[in-house]
Amino acid sequence: MSAEVRREQDLIGWLDVPADAYYGVHTVRASLNFPISGVSIGLYTHFVVALAAVKEAAAITNHELGLLDGPRSRAIVAACREIRAGGLHEHFIVDVVQGGAGTSTNMNANEVIANRALELMGAERGQYSVLHPLDHVNLGQSTNDVYPTALRVGLHHAAEDLLTAMAGLRRSFAAKAEEFEDHLKMGRTQLQDAVPMTLGQEFRTFAVMMAEDEQRLREAMDLTREVNLGGTAIGTGLNSHIDYSRLACRRLAEISGVRVVPAGDLIEATQDVGGLVQLHSVLKRIAVKLSKVANDLRLLSSGPRAGLGEIQLPAVQAGSSIMPGKVNPVIPEVVNQVAYSVVGNDVTITMAAESGQLQLNAFEPIMARALFSSLGELRSACTVLGERCVDGITADPVALLATVERSIGLVTALVPYLGYKTSTEVAQQAMATGASVVDVVRESGLMSDTELADVFGSPHLLTAPGIRLAVL
Amino acid sequence: MSAEVRREQDLIGWLDVPADAYYGVHTVRASLNFPISGVSIGLYTHFVVALAAVKEAAAITNHELGLLDGPRSRAIVAACREIRAGGLHEHFIVDVVQGGAGTSTNMNANEVIANRALELMGAERGQYSVLHPLDHVNLGQSTNDVYPTALRVGLHHAAEDLLTAMAGLRRSFAAKAEEFEDHLKMGRTQLQDAVPMTLGQEFRTFAVMMAEDEQRLREAMDLTREVNLGGTAIGTGLNSHIDYSRLACRRLAEISGVRVVPAGDLIEATQDVGGLVQLHSVLKRIAVKLSKVANDLRLLSSGPRAGLGEIQLPAVQAGSSIMPGKVNPVIPEVVNQVAYSVVGNDVTITMAAESGQLQLNAFEPIMARALFSSLGELRSACTVLGERCVDGITADPVALLATVERSIGLVTALVPYLGYKTSTEVAQQAMATGASVVDVVRESGLMSDTELADVFGSPHLLTAPGIRLAVL
Amino acid sequence: MSAEVRREQDLIGWLDVPADAYYGVHTVRASLNFPISGVSIGLYTHFVVALAAVKEAAAITNHELGLLDGPRSRAIVAACREIRAGGLHEHFIVDVVQGGAGTSTNMNANEVIANRALELMGAERGQYSVLHPLDHVNLGQSTNDVYPTALRVGLHHAAEDLLTAMAGLRRSFAAKAEEFEDHLKMGRTQLQDAVPMTLGQEFRTFAVMMAEDEQRLREAMDLTREVNLGGTAIGTGLNSHIDYSRLACRRLAEISGVRVVPAGDLIEATQDVGGLVQLHSVLKRIAVKLSKVANDLRLLSSGPRAGLGEIQLPAVQAGSSIMPGKVNPVIPEVVNQVAYSVVGNDVTITMAAESGQLQLNAFEPIMARALFSSLGELRSACTVLGERCVDGITADPVALLATVERSIGLVTALVPYLGYKTSTEVAQQAMATGASVVDVVRESGLMSDTELADVFGSPHLLTAPGIRLAVL
Amino acid sequence: MSAEVRREQDLIGWLDVPADAYYGVHTVRASLNFPISGVSIGLYTHFVVALAAVKEAAAITNHELGLLDGPRSRAIVAACREIRAGGLHEHFIVDVVQGGAGTSTNMNANEVIANRALELMGAERGQYSVLHPLDHVNLGQSTNDVYPTALRVGLHHAAEDLLTAMAGLRRSFAAKAEEFEDHLKMGRTQLQDAVPMTLGQEFRTFAVMMAEDEQRLREAMDLTREVNLGGTAIGTGLNSHIDYSRLACRRLAEISGVRVVPAGDLIEATQDVGGLVQLHSVLKRIAVKLSKVANDLRLLSSGPRAGLGEIQLPAVQAGSSIMPGKVNPVIPEVVNQVAYSVVGNDVTITMAAESGQLQLNAFEPIMARALFSSLGELRSACTVLGERCVDGITADPVALLATVERSIGLVTALVPYLGYKTSTEVAQQAMATGASVVDVVRESGLMSDTELADVFGSPHLLTAPGIRLAVL
Repeated sequence: MSAEVRREQDLIGWLDVPADAYYGVHTVRASLNFPISGVSIGLYTHFVVALAAVKEAAAITNHELGLLDGPRSRAIVAACREIRAGGLHEHFIVDVVQGGAGTSTNMNANEVIANRALELMGAERGQYSVLHPLDHVNLGQSTNDVYPTALRVGLHHAAEDLLTAMAGLRRSFAAKAEEFEDHLKMGRTQLQDAVPMTLGQEFRTFAVMMAEDEQRLREAMDLTREVNLGGTAIGTGLNSHIDYSRLACRRLAEISGVRVVPAGDLIEATQDVGGLVQLHSVLKRIAVKLSKVANDLRLLSSGPRAGLGEIQLPAVQAGSSIMPGKVNPVIPEVVNQVAYSVVGNDVTITMAAESGQLQLNAFEPIMARALFSSLGELRSACTVLGERCVDGITADPVALLATVERSIGLVTALVPYLGYKTSTEVAQQAMATGASVVDVVRESGLMSDTELADVFGSPHLLTAPGIRLAVL
Repeated sequence: MSAEVRREQDLIGWLDVPADAYYGVHTVRASLNFPISGVSIGLYTHFVVALAAVKEAAAITNHELGLLDGPRSRAIVAACREIRAGGLHEHFIVDVVQGGAGTSTNMNANEVIANRALELMGAERGQYSVLHPLDHVNLGQSTNDVYPTALRVGLHHAAEDLLTAMAGLRRSFAAKAEEFEDHLKMGRTQLQDAVPMTLGQEFRTFAVMMAEDEQRLREAMDLTREVNLGGTAIGTGLNSHIDYSRLACRRLAEISGVRVVPAGDLIEATQDVGGLVQLHSVLKRIAVKLSKVANDLRLLSSGPRAGLGEIQLPAVQAGSSIMPGKVNPVIPEVVNQVAYSVVGNDVTITMAAESGQLQLNAFEPIMARALFSSLGELRSACTVLGERCVDGITADPVALLATVERSIGLVTALVPYLGYKTSTEVAQQAMATGASVVDVVRESGLMSDTELADVFGSPHLLTAPGIRLAVL
Repeated sequence: MSAEVRREQDLIGWLDVPADAYYGVHTVRASLNFPISGVSIGLYTHFVVALAAVKEAAAITNHELGLLDGPRSRAIVAACREIRAGGLHEHFIVDVVQGGAGTSTNMNANEVIANRALELMGAERGQYSVLHPLDHVNLGQSTNDVYPTALRVGLHHAAEDLLTAMAGLRRSFAAKAEEFEDHLKMGRTQLQDAVPMTLGQEFRTFAVMMAEDEQRLREAMDLTREVNLGGTAIGTGLNSHIDYSRLACRRLAEISGVRVVPAGDLIEATQDVGGLVQLHSVLKRIAVKLSKVANDLRLLSSGPRAGLGEIQLPAVQAGSSIMPGKVNPVIPEVVNQVAYSVVGNDVTITMAAESGQLQLNAFEPIMARALFSSLGELRSACTVLGERCVDGITADPVALLATVERSIGLVTALVPYLGYKTSTEVAQQAMATGASVVDVVRESGLMSDTELADVFGSPHLLTAPGIRLAVL
Repeated sequence: MSAEVRREQDLIGWLDVPADAYYGVHTVRASLNFPISGVSIGLYTHFVVALAAVKEAAAITNHELGLLDGPRSRAIVAACREIRAGGLHEHFIVDVVQGGAGTSTNMNANEVIANRALELMGAERGQYSVLHPLDHVNLGQSTNDVYPTALRVGLHHAAEDLLTAMAGLRRSFAAKAEEFEDHLKMGRTQLQDAVPMTLGQEFRTFAVMMAEDEQRLREAMDLTREVNLGGTAIGTGLNSHIDYSRLACRRLAEISGVRVVPAGDLIEATQDVGGLVQLHSVLKRIAVKLSKVANDLRLLSSGPRAGLGEIQLPAVQAGSSIMPGKVNPVIPEVVNQVAYSVVGNDVTITMAAESGQLQLNAFEPIMARALFSSLGELRSACTVLGERCVDGITADPVALLATVERSIGLVTALVPYLGYKTSTEVAQQAMATGASVVDVVRESGLMSDTELADVFGSPHLLTAPGIRLAVL
């Protein structure tokens, strides 16, 4: 029946809009044009909240500059705050994968805010003569500055979530490093037994890696604080008040908590997506490291009887539908897969970045999807890895020590005393006879028991720098 | 209250399951372990349907082999058919991104089918002594053969959908090729004016490309018809009846409509994901071609006044929130972005494929996501490109012809008569004076009017092979 | 002194060319423009030979069509044959990485052939009035058909070399499969002990994989046999004789041994690089498989004492500058690295392919480099992997058998008899007590000795399909 | 004859070495094992020099610590200085693509230095009892700390070269920005006419981008100054003097000019390649930006008559073998192709980084190749782009201004006065009638001549922020 829709008009013509929709004609048009991924922008909470923050900052600034009257400004601000508080997200229906450089996302926001503001002003949805999505909500703005700005603010918040998860995982690794600090074991290079270390040292590296990556992420986040708000269509600032960019950024920083600043050259900032590329490059770096750690955990826990079996991962689910009792490293495996997705996303972003033309990169929507996806999945991966895997890892120090004692790699510690060539012969004899390195050296009379004790007496001395005998 | 949950047990221990859930303890466990992407396997319709088809084929085959009694077999088959008809998909709740090589997906299917079958047998959900998710639904199966087999069947159906969309787009291109067959225009190489062609020829190439890619896709689909069903855990077929693989594949082919056959070496087939890599490589190829076409359409329609302006794309939405009247090539732009995602997915799949170890590749879940995503988004991209863009493209033959007449590139047609060096001089003089090539040649007396008419008289002769003057 | 150079002219102006150079002004110009990689096309033997084959085919065809006189045709053919025999490659000096869609490569070939032909005709180098690089050597041709055609022919030959190396590696795997066919060992999924298999089965899969990939490569090579020779500038065939394309392709097939055929639509073929994309996708597939195999070999040979140690790779060099006696899996490691390069090349090619515009893809030169690099390095990788690693692999069947006997995975074979739940309990008890699965079952009275013997009596029965007890 | 070789021994056995070679048995062995790319490490000048710097620093430090006597230390230092001065590079013959984590590279360096030092000491090549490649040259070192350290130092120098080239290109862009600062033209978004800007602004963005990327590169270079020298085999520092790491890094900084410092955790630093990943990510970022700029230059110079034709690139070579007078944008094209290679290299590095296992990443050699290749080719690309293209670009301000005057995009400047809806109608009417926006507004009486003059009177006002009429 007629009450269920209202009619709105754009440059293409008239179109029915559901009567209870806060969005309008541009949004409906975009929904028809982009039935691509089936995932609407409303599911990208950080992004929707950031869009509302930008619109709120603009409305306040425009009022301060005398370009927008008080009632309209207040209504827009109120609508934006509802959205920032989590409301109306289900009205952000356009597909996250969209043509048009984000115009449909911006239009969706303009329309939802306008119609909610109209309600708050006592008018009806669609009564745009009272308050217009473009003339008022979008006043002094262009998709080309709003979308990139909101994207960066939203990404900043998503990156903070990831940082929190990374810190949690780092603490899990550090706790295990402490727990295992006396567990002597063989270090390995190229999957071959190398020289001794402690299991604590092994886990410490994971914590150190994570801390470094947190630092790199913070640096990359800093690059996304430069925005082009106020640049309007191509960065020249056409149609924006001379003070708008500076003031709007200040307001946006207050509202969003992200210390955004106007870029030094707005034209450059409007076409350049280098900050996004770099942010995702750091996500790729994090992914690669996490995947390496996941590989190590899977390898060290391989077995239970025909593997390395140096650590045991906690069982979190049955491993097999056919092999009873099998427990698989499912958490590290999902971390690996998240990493592979992130690497794929990096290539997507690279291609999208390279394809920018002249005054704009029209492909930020696909970059947005890839970035939010990587940020969110990495956060989940860090959390489950810490809480459902690392925290429950156990190890048997006696078994680990045995692998050191029977290792060939111990011979390395003798090189300063015997030289490389003689040490090689000791190693070969130990391999051939199955004897231990210490036994071979003792029996061949190459070193005395006292000398051997100096080198091997305290195995922990083997895990730090220092040469224990005078050798010249 | 107690009625709202039932308790089920796995090797980890007891756990509450919602009383009205068809899934069981393994599924709940997996949900807790993998809160990664927020997208459940139930949204991958083709995959869920294929899983049910595999389970149905297994139940029938096991009954035929005397390993499963009639009532259980019939109940399982009935449950599977409900799922294949679109039912119960909302009970497939595990995240598509999961560790465990797909075990959670298989378990989810086993549990949903078992519990629905129990209902059909008049028993209660969870009453696994009557019909067990593993002992009966999963009988003779392993995740390691079920998951890869169902994945390939599901992909086959998704690829068929893509083929349909590609054919539609191809027909759109072909129709335009016919419509524009007499529109003479300048061809371009390296963005520089080259030699004449028709706009019809230009669109014809798009149709030809598409036809080729359809053929390549069909070939790749053929590679996914080889499955490892019956290989069980590692492909040796342990615990499967000697006739199971052959019979189950035959049944699966009947049920699914995909002519699956057992792979020649089931051990190899269990660990090898080459067919998936190749299938996606073809998707990447399609994406790259589509993106090239989208780029061409955007370039040819650039303007309206400061661009090439050779064709006009239909306006499908307002182009800008700040620039009135601007219409953007939003449909080609979304096609580009889909292509960038597909290329990213290709790298994801490559890494997942490379990471397989020993008797299994545990990373098919992420490959599944990437493949279904690429197939689905490419299908959408082809459809909107055809229906919302290509079908509405228009061109002005008069304006196009003018670009030919004033072109320098016409001089190429004179090389067989004047030689490369003289022709170069003609071109340079035309450039310097702004004159047309024909005028320069005529005025310099290099060729007579008759000779010029032979070459240029019928411009369409310029768009096909053949030399029109005797030259030796 | 003046005798050391000759002066040649192009559209830019006059330029000195070394007097003893067979190349000319265009080549020198290109050398100045592209000091990029430092690697000249002359090092791409297959490519240079293919270029000469195309030029020879063109000269013969042009003569047959009455467009080129006998003396010139014969001189050109003779020069081309010298090049095909390995001569003059050092005069192909332009950088393989070049702008201009290969024009500089084509010009380099035209000039070398022209100047050598001039010598053969008794004229001087640079005496182009006698025989001209463009008017005669390049007669009826364009870079845009010559370069792509020669590239495909050259790639075909390089791919044949790879096929030979793959076949050699496949035979190495097959020989080991036979040698190890009775070595019972534990199969592993997800790095966890799964069920028994033989080491022969494990190596057989590598041979099967390789055979499949050979077949895929052959199919991809077939796609590169379609060429656009005769399409000239943009595929319309402007300036080419109506019979040229067909005849020149026939000649080229005779000369090169590659059964090239004209593409069905030369305009499409001129701009489309789908065949190159697909060829490299198959190389990527091969790389991924090889890398997986290399990973497996490194993992299975890990140790010597704190690893899996199931196989021993032959020592081919000292492994460490600090750890005496250490032997590393250096051959598999180099295979991995080649694979990573090939995957990178695939992305390079993807981007280059996507960037084609309108009637031409100007980026075939970078695709050429990537393709020849991948083909050559994969060939080397296959050869060293077979000859310097696989052929020398050894294994100890007694040690392997011991891992089976103490495995938990054996319990899987009992599922048909005991059910999944009871089998899980057996596995858990074995894990907890350190006992073997057989002992747990026997002591618990779950199965009789006779029944156990039926299942486990002949361990090899565990590595093939079949259920040995009546169970219903 | 026997005088031509000497015999040396390693753990595999005896082998002939050319008598005049400075390298020894380990190098020969590696040459046989790795016939992969055909490119020897000797061609990587920065890397070889850095290796010598590390060895020199080690020899000095070992002498200071009392571990190496004066004569040997001095001889080693002298040999290293020869290499750093450019000598002996032709004796670094092992393939850059190698297994063994760089052991062969380190061994090659040890052997060349030892044999040259032996000569300087008056001994014969191969007389290792006097001075030994491992016991003396490699004293206190492991490939696992030497190779990564030298790699980072070498990369730092190569990155400095790139920075110099980037600065040159930036200055070229800046000069053009100044030259074109008054050339009013239409800005474009999504290839559609947007709003006015100056050509100077357009070129300014390129300079700004470049400056930003230089800054990012410097930051990434800082990350590579942390080295693991002194960590020996796995970072625990086994066999190194307690003061070695600190002192050797100090010496290395003095010698190389790169302010290297020991990493905070040498175990982590030995297995972590995050700094390399990040460095190359920045190279990828640079490549993507350069490629975007190259695309813009090609697009803006498209024509000469059927393209945008806004700028003219200098002709640097003839463009076509068939189309006389054609001049192609060959320099931007080669820049694009370098960029595609760099993006491919990024994926190669990503995969190599992800594949590190436990205490070492064995795949730094392929990362080394990719990094040096990207650095070198980007440097060349920047240099040729600046010197052979940008510096010679010209533009016609009159023609550019004409495109602005007839543009529809001018209407955007009227939105603050007429509102979005009325402005849209003006745009549509201008499109339909072919009239100019100013004429449509004037004739419709929407604004007075005075008002129009305020907005459009000084076109340059259109290229900066500001609203010129009171609008509330």
